[in-house]
Amino acid sequence: MEQLTAHDITVLFLSLGILLGTARLLGELAQRLHQPAVLGELLAGVLLGPTVLGTLAPTVSAYLFPAQGPSAVALNAITTLAIALFLMVAGIEVDLSTIWRQGKVGAKIGLASIAVPFVCGLAAAWLAPAALGRRSEADPLIFMLFVAIALSISALPVIAKTLMDMDLYRSDLGMVVVSAAILNDLVGWIIFAVVLGLLGDPAGNGNAIGLTIALTLAFSAAMLTLGRWLIHKLLPFVQAYTRWPAGELSFAITLALLGAAFTAWIGIHAIFGAFLVGAALGDSAHLRERTRVTIEHFISSIFAPLFFASIGLHVNFWVHFDGPLVLTVSFLACACKLAGGFLGARWGKMPAREAAAVGFAMVSVGAMGIIVGLLALRAGIISQSLFVALVIMAMVTSMLSGPAIRLILRPVRKWRPHEALSAKLFLRHLKFCTRREAVEEMVRAACAAAGLDPQRIMAEVWGREETLSTGIGHGVALPHARVAGLREPIVAVGICDEGIDFDAPDGQPAHVIFLILTPAADPRAQLTIAAEIARLFRKQAMLDRALRTRSFTDFLALMSTSVA
Amino acid sequence: MEQLTAHDITVLFLSLGILLGTARLLGELAQRLHQPAVLGELLAGVLLGPTVLGTLAPTVSAYLFPAQGPSAVALNAITTLAIALFLMVAGIEVDLSTIWRQGKVGAKIGLASIAVPFVCGLAAAWLAPAALGRRSEADPLIFMLFVAIALSISALPVIAKTLMDMDLYRSDLGMVVVSAAILNDLVGWIIFAVVLGLLGDPAGNGNAIGLTIALTLAFSAAMLTLGRWLIHKLLPFVQAYTRWPAGELSFAITLALLGAAFTAWIGIHAIFGAFLVGAALGDSAHLRERTRVTIEHFISSIFAPLFFASIGLHVNFWVHFDGPLVLTVSFLACACKLAGGFLGARWGKMPAREAAAVGFAMVSVGAMGIIVGLLALRAGIISQSLFVALVIMAMVTSMLSGPAIRLILRPVRKWRPHEALSAKLFLRHLKFCTRREAVEEMVRAACAAAGLDPQRIMAEVWGREETLSTGIGHGVALPHARVAGLREPIVAVGICDEGIDFDAPDGQPAHVIFLILTPAADPRAQLTIAAEIARLFRKQAMLDRALRTRSFTDFLALMSTSVA
Repeated sequence: MEQLTAHDITVLFLSLGILLGTARLLGELAQRLHQPAVLGELLAGVLLGPTVLGTLAPTVSAYLFPAQGPSAVALNAITTLAIALFLMVAGIEVDLSTIWRQGKVGAKIGLASIAVPFVCGLAAAWLAPAALGRRSEADPLIFMLFVAIALSISALPVIAKTLMDMDLYRSDLGMVVVSAAILNDLVGWIIFAVVLGLLGDPAGNGNAIGLTIALTLAFSAAMLTLGRWLIHKLLPFVQAYTRWPAGELSFAITLALLGAAFTAWIGIHAIFGAFLVGAALGDSAHLRERTRVTIEHFISSIFAPLFFASIGLHVNFWVHFDGPLVLTVSFLACACKLAGGFLGARWGKMPAREAAAVGFAMVSVGAMGIIVGLLALRAGIISQSLFVALVIMAMVTSMLSGPAIRLILRPVRKWRPHEALSAKLFLRHLKFCTRREAVEEMVRAACAAAGLDPQRIMAEVWGREETLSTGIGHGVALPHARVAGLREPIVAVGICDEGIDFDAPDGQPAHVIFLILTPAADPRAQLTIAAEIARLFRKQAMLDRALRTRSFTDFLALMSTSVA
Repeated sequence: MEQLTAHDITVLFLSLGILLGTARLLGELAQRLHQPAVLGELLAGVLLGPTVLGTLAPTVSAYLFPAQGPSAVALNAITTLAIALFLMVAGIEVDLSTIWRQGKVGAKIGLASIAVPFVCGLAAAWLAPAALGRRSEADPLIFMLFVAIALSISALPVIAKTLMDMDLYRSDLGMVVVSAAILNDLVGWIIFAVVLGLLGDPAGNGNAIGLTIALTLAFSAAMLTLGRWLIHKLLPFVQAYTRWPAGELSFAITLALLGAAFTAWIGIHAIFGAFLVGAALGDSAHLRERTRVTIEHFISSIFAPLFFASIGLHVNFWVHFDGPLVLTVSFLACACKLAGGFLGARWGKMPAREAAAVGFAMVSVGAMGIIVGLLALRAGIISQSLFVALVIMAMVTSMLSGPAIRLILRPVRKWRPHEALSAKLFLRHLKFCTRREAVEEMVRAACAAAGLDPQRIMAEVWGREETLSTGIGHGVALPHARVAGLREPIVAVGICDEGIDFDAPDGQPAHVIFLILTPAADPRAQLTIAAEIARLFRKQAMLDRALRTRSFTDFLALMSTSVA
């Protein structure tokens, strides 16, 4: 077997480590700015690729990411594996039964959100192929179909994430949007697979176009019916007769790899097979939650960032940046997808305001558009400039979606306690361990930080405390008040190792006291935060761990990692 | 960037899928036969490699596992990544504090178990280099050192697994053995790293031997002190300020990749860096259990089988099988390691019988010996025949260890309820739903299957039932008896959807009845099984799920996946 040399291995591990580290770091920053992580991950690739690092330090760039040779092949193989496994996770997230439950409205939005951009895309590519960056040697029909797909595909993961962030995922609106996005994903990928089939088979496996298309449709239909049924029947056997979770985990990954191999063999891309296997797997009620979580966590935290960062390595975004093209493509995508989603929702008899929210939700092209673009670039259908424009368009639409929905629906933000904490309001050792003095100390700290009047707030908090004590048991107390004019919730934490009597139902003294001040305008915030704290501290172990923390970072780490 | 063609991608996914599927299947079979999974995984590679598939179907073999070209490089890159990540997991399992706790005895065993085989190995390789398969161009000193290491290294994962299977892991003996194995691992790998450094640097990075050795020792020392401290300090920040678990997971993997790159760069193998990063990470009490579990499950279920199966692809085990060499190496390894462990334990003043058990526990060379052998093969130090002999030796020692300890210590086997179930004794719909008749129906089924006298058993079971009812609440009852002459526990399951009054403390009727018959000679078996069932059914959800099962497989799947 051909072996990598020690040099190749050094470069491989170094480039993977730097790609992953940078991608995750920028992904986290993007999330801090309330943007999807994929934006930061893409940016990492732009920084490490020819656009920035390749221009500023060409030697370093050539060492880390050589264009040719075993290291390049190795990185390419690992990112190909990464994207196939990521599509498997995207498939697992698809809940086929949701489509049926949400029935007609979801189907109408799904179809309209494909049909409108598809027709617009076809028309635009037919009318102005050169302006859209068609490579002269590319087949006009294929190019038209490709532009149509790039504009019509949606990013289920980004859409789902945006809705979850706004606590809309399980709402009626959320489920309609998700089922529409699932339908969009499935139909979009199947059409794309057929287009790739039309390209013929560059590997020369000898399959004719017609055969490829027939095999694609047959495979899709088989996976979503027979395959899905078979997996559902096989899973209990795997669970019963193999060691758990190794048996179930490797069963799932093996199937995804074989599905990927099959679709690669019939002449469409490997990711399609992995996606369909994921959809069939995720649909089985027998797939254990633990297995699902292990696969999703490992793949979305490691493989997905590696893949998205690697995209920036392919193209110089600076050299191939074509302003008018970027504007055209972005405008076209936003307008068509918005129109498609809106019209579909109106067709399904939704009120105009909700229909607009649906339209913006469907706007996210996200990762899927980039994957489609990358395959088209490799297949020689589109120019590097169009690829750059597509990546930017995908980023723009994904950034637009969340804020636009927020603007239209003004959903109540779901506050998590650890998001409202701050180092200044963490009093590790309360000076006074009597109820009134402890509350006063915390109120003073909170008011100093937020510029509030401590006397007014103390009167409010203490008034409540006297009516009904806020010791909830398990060593926790939650004094609180709703404050007029406050814009965001404030949570101060005071810890008293000795314990303070807060008149709790279980008779235990309180050791950890959360002072919760919430905006009077947001009546749900206080309840959400209090309920989450009570949930976190329902076990004695949490209190013990909280008492062992020595700094705000320790405490924040404890609260953050106990959320899931 | 150099791209894989559609053909390369097909071959890559197909070969990965087949390797993983076969490895896991044979790994499961090995575990059914009470052997470590790694045996089956290695066998999968032998079947798919030149030994069997390459001989029987050379075209298929050349298609799936080409010796040259992008697919070969890709597979090589992925298995290299796999082994580095697996060594990271092995490192995470190392608990440095255990070494301190177990103090002197563990240290003595650890040192003796390295020193004795090391000296024997040096002597054997000095006296009879040709008989041991030295390649003529290999440096005699390096060869001697290598044989010494291959004989002295231990397989912490296999040892830990063997002890866990026998419920000895948390015993005093277990902890002594584990701490000795950890010390063995650490010292063994550091010596091996130095030997690889002596080999010089084939990549021509220009590091002199002395520098490599100095860097290795400095890196090891730094990772286990400063690095460990830094990681411990950084983890709370990562947890507090990034999304969990993505932040912590990718932090761990990024560090492992960079550590691997560093050790590959200084001229020793990448796996060493990953191992040390794992050891530093695993030692931090801040590493969350969930993160640890996700990493360990994904890597040991997917990456480890891929790597071990890929070993068989390198060598034709049939052609290079050298009977006398295999016997010599295996005998040498068993004798030296047994002697080392035994002498170390006696030195630590352990009684002779326990010292013998320690000796056999330390015999497992397992995966580590194979990894060392593979690196030596690649570096051109050893012949293919010696490599084959080392792999077989590693398999033999790992198979020997468990049964030998069982023979010496005769530990009480820890029975898990799902291991005692069988399809014949699963009565999904009990005919009679009154207490006595239900118990009688189950006793009759159990006695028919085990060849016992139903009247005698019924008298025993019913006698207990009348003295103290066995309804334990939550819808479960556990009628039971200890039966003289029984060799293994028998558990029959009867389900009654309507419910049977078993006089439970919570007043609930029993829906799931477990009849537990245990050997009179094994007084702990009944308690262990009953406690585990009670633990599984402590939540209402478990009962609901049990009542939804429709077949024995469903029920076994539920019991198996709820164990962890």
